[in-house]
Amino acid sequence: MKLSKYLLPVLKETPSEAEIISHTLMLRSGMISQSSSGIYSWLPIGLRVLKKIENIVRDEQNNAGVNEILMPTIQPADIWNESGRYEDYGKEMLRINDRHDRQMLYGPTNEEQVTDIFRRSIKSYKELPQLLYHIQWKFRDELRPRFGVMRGREFLMKDAYSFDIDEMKSEDSYNRFFICYLKTFARMGLKAIPMAADTGPIGGDLSHEFVILSKTGESDIYFDQRILQEDESINEIDYEGDLKKPVEKFKSYYSVSDDKYNESEFNKNVDKQNQMQSRGIEVGHIFSFGTKYSTSMKANVLDFDGKEKSVYMGSYGIGISRLVGAIIETSHDEKGIIWPDVVAPFLFGIINLSPKDEIVSSNAEKIYNYISDKYETIYDDKKDNAGVKFSRMDLIGIPHQIIIGNKSKSDNEIEYKNRRTGNSEFINIDKIDEFIKRFPSYSAI
Amino acid sequence: MKLSKYLLPVLKETPSEAEIISHTLMLRSGMISQSSSGIYSWLPIGLRVLKKIENIVRDEQNNAGVNEILMPTIQPADIWNESGRYEDYGKEMLRINDRHDRQMLYGPTNEEQVTDIFRRSIKSYKELPQLLYHIQWKFRDELRPRFGVMRGREFLMKDAYSFDIDEMKSEDSYNRFFICYLKTFARMGLKAIPMAADTGPIGGDLSHEFVILSKTGESDIYFDQRILQEDESINEIDYEGDLKKPVEKFKSYYSVSDDKYNESEFNKNVDKQNQMQSRGIEVGHIFSFGTKYSTSMKANVLDFDGKEKSVYMGSYGIGISRLVGAIIETSHDEKGIIWPDVVAPFLFGIINLSPKDEIVSSNAEKIYNYISDKYETIYDDKKDNAGVKFSRMDLIGIPHQIIIGNKSKSDNEIEYKNRRTGNSEFINIDKIDEFIKRFPSYSAI
Repeated sequence: MKLSKYLLPVLKETPSEAEIISHTLMLRSGMISQSSSGIYSWLPIGLRVLKKIENIVRDEQNNAGVNEILMPTIQPADIWNESGRYEDYGKEMLRINDRHDRQMLYGPTNEEQVTDIFRRSIKSYKELPQLLYHIQWKFRDELRPRFGVMRGREFLMKDAYSFDIDEMKSEDSYNRFFICYLKTFARMGLKAIPMAADTGPIGGDLSHEFVILSKTGESDIYFDQRILQEDESINEIDYEGDLKKPVEKFKSYYSVSDDKYNESEFNKNVDKQNQMQSRGIEVGHIFSFGTKYSTSMKANVLDFDGKEKSVYMGSYGIGISRLVGAIIETSHDEKGIIWPDVVAPFLFGIINLSPKDEIVSSNAEKIYNYISDKYETIYDDKKDNAGVKFSRMDLIGIPHQIIIGNKSKSDNEIEYKNRRTGNSEFINIDKIDEFIKRFPSYSAI
Repeated sequence: MKLSKYLLPVLKETPSEAEIISHTLMLRSGMISQSSSGIYSWLPIGLRVLKKIENIVRDEQNNAGVNEILMPTIQPADIWNESGRYEDYGKEMLRINDRHDRQMLYGPTNEEQVTDIFRRSIKSYKELPQLLYHIQWKFRDELRPRFGVMRGREFLMKDAYSFDIDEMKSEDSYNRFFICYLKTFARMGLKAIPMAADTGPIGGDLSHEFVILSKTGESDIYFDQRILQEDESINEIDYEGDLKKPVEKFKSYYSVSDDKYNESEFNKNVDKQNQMQSRGIEVGHIFSFGTKYSTSMKANVLDFDGKEKSVYMGSYGIGISRLVGAIIETSHDEKGIIWPDVVAPFLFGIINLSPKDEIVSSNAEKIYNYISDKYETIYDDKKDNAGVKFSRMDLIGIPHQIIIGNKSKSDNEIEYKNRRTGNSEFINIDKIDEFIKRFPSYSAI
């Protein structure tokens, strides 16, 4: 992509409304544009990151054997009346009357909607388990939206739902998502800590939050630091194998957020040298709630003995748009964002320092064509001065940068700069084949 | 994908609410499930088709050099008050008050929203043209939603917007989308006819609809049949070349829908033997409307002479969810859907006729692994009888079917059936390598 043909409205000033660094950097780097309080448009470079994250989440759901569906954003109030949550949900639910004055709502979550699909579709225990997910925009009318996409009103969430014949099978599904979530966050380079959590308005009796460590997190967390080491083995766990054992291992470590924190329990369960306290950002939440919805909404199946039975359910959410902000919170410096390779909007950024020089530009064009053939690449072909170009490329966080047209070097040399380390080296153009082999390929958007 | 692990709730009966064949077939084949009037959930197989179509639309927008963004579904009323459309739009607009009683709405289209993004981001003629698209759910509160996804309330649309410095440049952008749309529909195997159209609530003075021929279409269309031949050269047109000439060629043929039809003009402009009348389905609509929104919303740029100037705009829509229905309307038989290869949910379907026979099943499993490694494949491993399996695979429209375990044949032979022609042939398993080479590969979802 040539920058001269791209929409990238970077800002020099720090926007006054931004309270946290990810919000500031997303506005400054032209990733998002505010539409109204807590509601954002995603500009080209922001959308690329959002999709990268979405695709990792999707791919890992597919790996876990979960089937993708897509439920609408607007739901009828009827099904929420059936479950009893229509009155309970409060002002966070965006309520709408349509032209025929029927009560509708913008879905803040989808337990009712998916239970309705289930009860129309599935009649027998033979068709269980059913594991379904969707990735769709949700709306929660927060009293005070803030922190940009971290606590927006319209936000993108992956929510999944499990339907099982009994409590034991339901726990198998819960464990499957537990492992799936750890794998998902690990793929993004995040350390996510599972913590025992309250169930809130979703209901149920078994629940974990997945929290990543960040100084700017909204919740205080207390945990046994050995859980971080456990996380390193997550890639080796096979979905077809025993999932109960690794999940039990994770659960055996004390780890809670402030609402469940109890000092004497912490001291009793965790040696002083393993006690850790931090702030964290919740990026996932899983719930097992038995027959809460299937009973009220009559989502029954015939069991092997021919008797009707309410199914056991769970729900499992990942905040996809929130993750964009969360990753920035954990990966930035004073110059701007530092994208991990796997979610970078472009893996390579090429800076042409002398766009008016024909030889340099022809070289730059060739190198751009060569690299962009293999990797997603943004090419700064604009006529701005070097300082503007360097700081823009750093601000938007492109991990691997190629600088062409440095007057102090020969025409045959280009500079490679690593955004994270800041290290820089000179590469002979003739050896670019070899150079490029250092970089693994990631799937394009 | 193994059918035993898939959600595919096919129906035997024809649902009484369906008035047209695509609606019937989408419900019967388990593609969608109605949530409320004109609002649907997309079940796994339906979502796959929706995404295939979305990806073709996206890819062709990218080819045309249009940049993808993503605007939110919920917009503030303010910007619609600026343009003057908030009062005009009528009951089709879903109006919402948030918890602070601010007026919001579910976007039926995005001219105001994108103009707001533009005026915050772009200040100079040097940054023009700007071509932006997004693919997002829209809501139009139709008085009588009907025909399933063809006239739903919540629907997926690709809408694009162009911003240019003057009328001539704006026409270049218009022509670019004109050609892009013909290419897009041709890639889906559809013959789309561009017709001069009224501009409706979008406004402006230049507009074309893209209509595909279908007996069940909502509009009557009248056209010079030579335009169909013109369509065949569409792939050869290069975005970097002269686009005005081919567009003028298309425009030179008489082709209008009923609201613009005039019998004496038809007779004057088209020889009797070239006159065609048909019904059609609108799948795309493009508009050029000059400074209508940029003037009222003050979307100005500095021109080369340092003076402020309102930009010239156009907007360009494709109904993505509608296309799913439209393709079915043009491609089905009495047994069900016949998917064109490029949008099929799975290119191959494998039917195991003897799932209880260990040898057959082991063979079937091997063939499934082999084919699904290269192509998206659904494997019917369920324990239903042969008749159920055959009619289900035909109903859901899988273009290429492999039947394994036919008792009248040797264990070494499998049957290949082409859904569209109905032709069938027997293949020796040892020659499956050769057989599979017949099929081009399509990109996975």
